[in-house]
Amino acid sequence: MAERAALEELVRLQGERVRGLKQQKASAEQIEEEVAKLLKLKAQLGPDEGKQKFVLKTPKGTRDYSPRQMAVREKVFDVIISCFKRHGAEVIDTPVFELKETLTGKYGEDSKLIYDLKDQGGELLSLRYDLTVPFARYLAMNKLTNIKRYHIAKVYRRDNPAMTRGRYREFYQCDFDIAGQFDPMIPDAECLKIMCEILSSLQIGDFLVKVNDRRILDGMFAICGVPDSKFRTICSSVDKLDKVSWEEVKNEMVGEKGLAPEVADRIGDYVQQHGGVSLVEQLLQDPELSQNKQALEGLGDLKLLFEYLILLGIADKISFDLSLARGLDYYTGVIYEAVLLQSPAQAGEEPLGVGSVAAGGRYDGLVGMFDPKGRKVPCVGLSIGVERIFSIVEQRLEAELLYKKNPKLLNQLQYCEEAGIPLVAIIGEQELKDGVIKLRSVASREEVDIRREDLVEEIKRRTSEPLCTC
Amino acid sequence: MAERAALEELVRLQGERVRGLKQQKASAEQIEEEVAKLLKLKAQLGPDEGKQKFVLKTPKGTRDYSPRQMAVREKVFDVIISCFKRHGAEVIDTPVFELKETLTGKYGEDSKLIYDLKDQGGELLSLRYDLTVPFARYLAMNKLTNIKRYHIAKVYRRDNPAMTRGRYREFYQCDFDIAGQFDPMIPDAECLKIMCEILSSLQIGDFLVKVNDRRILDGMFAICGVPDSKFRTICSSVDKLDKVSWEEVKNEMVGEKGLAPEVADRIGDYVQQHGGVSLVEQLLQDPELSQNKQALEGLGDLKLLFEYLILLGIADKISFDLSLARGLDYYTGVIYEAVLLQSPAQAGEEPLGVGSVAAGGRYDGLVGMFDPKGRKVPCVGLSIGVERIFSIVEQRLEAELLYKKNPKLLNQLQYCEEAGIPLVAIIGEQELKDGVIKLRSVASREEVDIRREDLVEEIKRRTSEPLCTC
Repeated sequence: MAERAALEELVRLQGERVRGLKQQKASAEQIEEEVAKLLKLKAQLGPDEGKQKFVLKTPKGTRDYSPRQMAVREKVFDVIISCFKRHGAEVIDTPVFELKETLTGKYGEDSKLIYDLKDQGGELLSLRYDLTVPFARYLAMNKLTNIKRYHIAKVYRRDNPAMTRGRYREFYQCDFDIAGQFDPMIPDAECLKIMCEILSSLQIGDFLVKVNDRRILDGMFAICGVPDSKFRTICSSVDKLDKVSWEEVKNEMVGEKGLAPEVADRIGDYVQQHGGVSLVEQLLQDPELSQNKQALEGLGDLKLLFEYLILLGIADKISFDLSLARGLDYYTGVIYEAVLLQSPAQAGEEPLGVGSVAAGGRYDGLVGMFDPKGRKVPCVGLSIGVERIFSIVEQRLEAELLYKKNPKLLNQLQYCEEAGIPLVAIIGEQELKDGVIKLRSVASREEVDIRREDLVEEIKRRTSEPLCTC
Repeated sequence: MAERAALEELVRLQGERVRGLKQQKASAEQIEEEVAKLLKLKAQLGPDEGKQKFVLKTPKGTRDYSPRQMAVREKVFDVIISCFKRHGAEVIDTPVFELKETLTGKYGEDSKLIYDLKDQGGELLSLRYDLTVPFARYLAMNKLTNIKRYHIAKVYRRDNPAMTRGRYREFYQCDFDIAGQFDPMIPDAECLKIMCEILSSLQIGDFLVKVNDRRILDGMFAICGVPDSKFRTICSSVDKLDKVSWEEVKNEMVGEKGLAPEVADRIGDYVQQHGGVSLVEQLLQDPELSQNKQALEGLGDLKLLFEYLILLGIADKISFDLSLARGLDYYTGVIYEAVLLQSPAQAGEEPLGVGSVAAGGRYDGLVGMFDPKGRKVPCVGLSIGVERIFSIVEQRLEAELLYKKNPKLLNQLQYCEEAGIPLVAIIGEQELKDGVIKLRSVASREEVDIRREDLVEEIKRRTSEPLCTC
């Protein structure tokens, strides 16, 4: 074993030597020679015959759901599903993987994040990246031209996970889509209405829905002087504006993507604008933009959309935002994204960060990519990003019942101590008679009677004190 | 294009020529020469620049769920989940993939059926093969020694699919497991009780639960003269007895696995026996088997198990069957498998084939394989194979409602004609008054009034006529 350890150390040192030479840009022969030495040492070392260290964990970016987390998940799904059903959607499901070629050419620069399965003979497969492409494949395969469906399932992205903020590599999407030819902007307006209904019902704080249109973006790129071939990649850059500053986005456009600085600046003037229907009307008067056929169509549709949003009573939740671009390739018309306006964290809780909790848009060309004859089926839809919502609801969850037919008080209190539950509400016969509730602090074992009407406020006050939140 | 076609034909002919020479075992030089010609032709041909043929399908062995199939799925899950909850289980979920090493060494010969993900940098991952190994990993990771949980999720096996019989590569398992140290055979008996409750509630026909014990099998192998190292592989052979004849199993044992024919014959004498508790008692008297410590333990536990099964009122559903072996490596004690006794197909329906619809057993060593200190957590569980159940229920499903607020009768009848629904029950004001129901044959458009109490019988009679089932 000691001999092996010495050899391992030698391999390590030789590896460092090779890396050093490469950094110093030493001659090719010199590097080759040292690499040969390294390989020889490695061959001497052979495979590690000792017991492999076994890592007890879930894969990076994934998590288990405990029974408590499942309770939150089911509660959130109930709200979402009942809204989808209320709007007349049927439910479908698709396999977790698709033929690799089904996903090819649908996601632009994000394609690198697709999980592929190993080639073990037979078909080449990839894990689904979203539920939209499988839905389009389903429509084309079954020759459906008209359906309202929802689909709740896990999707997979080899992204950089940030699990405390609800960003996972395996995560749920809750999708609602309308396929079919209808009067303009009515299905689009329904999608926005559904997003607002769900986010309101979930009570996760105030939110805003940013809206834009791919045709307005394309028209804007055209009049700013972006070459056609760079529309999609510049679109991806613009899409980062919710996370990084305009300066950084401009650097990427000019430095990495080879755009002329003055073209980038012209884009910058546009994409930093946002507002309501008045901004739509203002841009309809824009001497350059209004000359572009695509932009004009997009602006006209947005104007009509806002009329419906007013009728549906949600116009105050919607902001026309020229910086919204959405990364995915397949959008063709209106696009939207809902963000929470502020973290719902109480004092003493860790802030969850503000971010996108729902998004979607119109994709009229996607089904045609699957149809053998290229027949198009216009589609519009939305996706609720529930992982972030789970995090928020989990943090807020306070009350728990002990599942015992004959629950002795002492057992319950003991359970609270073990589980770190800070407060217990006790309602016995005396409390019922007096119209009060006994509130017990588990840590200090202090008990006070509180009038029923004051209970909510008192619990809120106590749980917002840093010492009480366990 | 004509030139290309000619070249393609040349490539094809040259390919045939090479294959022919190989079959004739021509000289290496001769083959090499012809292969070189083939490669040259292929290089001339170049890649096919024409539109690639795009295959519009789901991956082999998988399927989409249409809204109708989802309705069946939800109905079946409701029955299963309510039973699991009634028996006090909590629900968990785990990621669809695990670290590859988590699955290594758990499935014996079936390991070749595991789906691996492509190495795209980072951890090596595999799709879960069942829900039992992820459960054991979850217990060890969270240091749980005591839990009753259920888990309903899709699992993945690169098996030969037979989709009409409900065998898929992506399929649901509904698992219920009890982890923890309890009095002998009580959790095992509860698992069998749950299996019987669910299969009865689903009304998919009569069933039988075969029971055996790994220790009895191992003891039997030992006294028959199977070398220790061949226990697991001979176990896999025995497990095939529900699908193929004893002759074929014996051939595999002797021909492929190198067992002496007389050893195989001794095994044959045992594994062709099945019966009730009396067979347990008979084997307890078997002069050889009763001398084997392992077998004796297994038989003793089975005897105790049957006592509980009688108390639980399900002993008549259970058959002690020495041919039941279960392929998986991790079982350590009692094992069981429920089979439907006959196809529930009606005349005119295609028979679904008889097969396993639920299975499980005791695995006391699995959690210890994950625990850094090897601490064992005894576990026993069951898995409901719902895909086959979906097929059966889907075939039986008859009634449908039209989702219209204002459904005109004519529209409804037209929908029935289009959808191939054979019968319509019409209840108008007159029918309500008369206490009858008008039954209309969609194909012949004949209508007859039927007394409400006779309706079920009449529908059963009509739908069992081959001409009526569409």
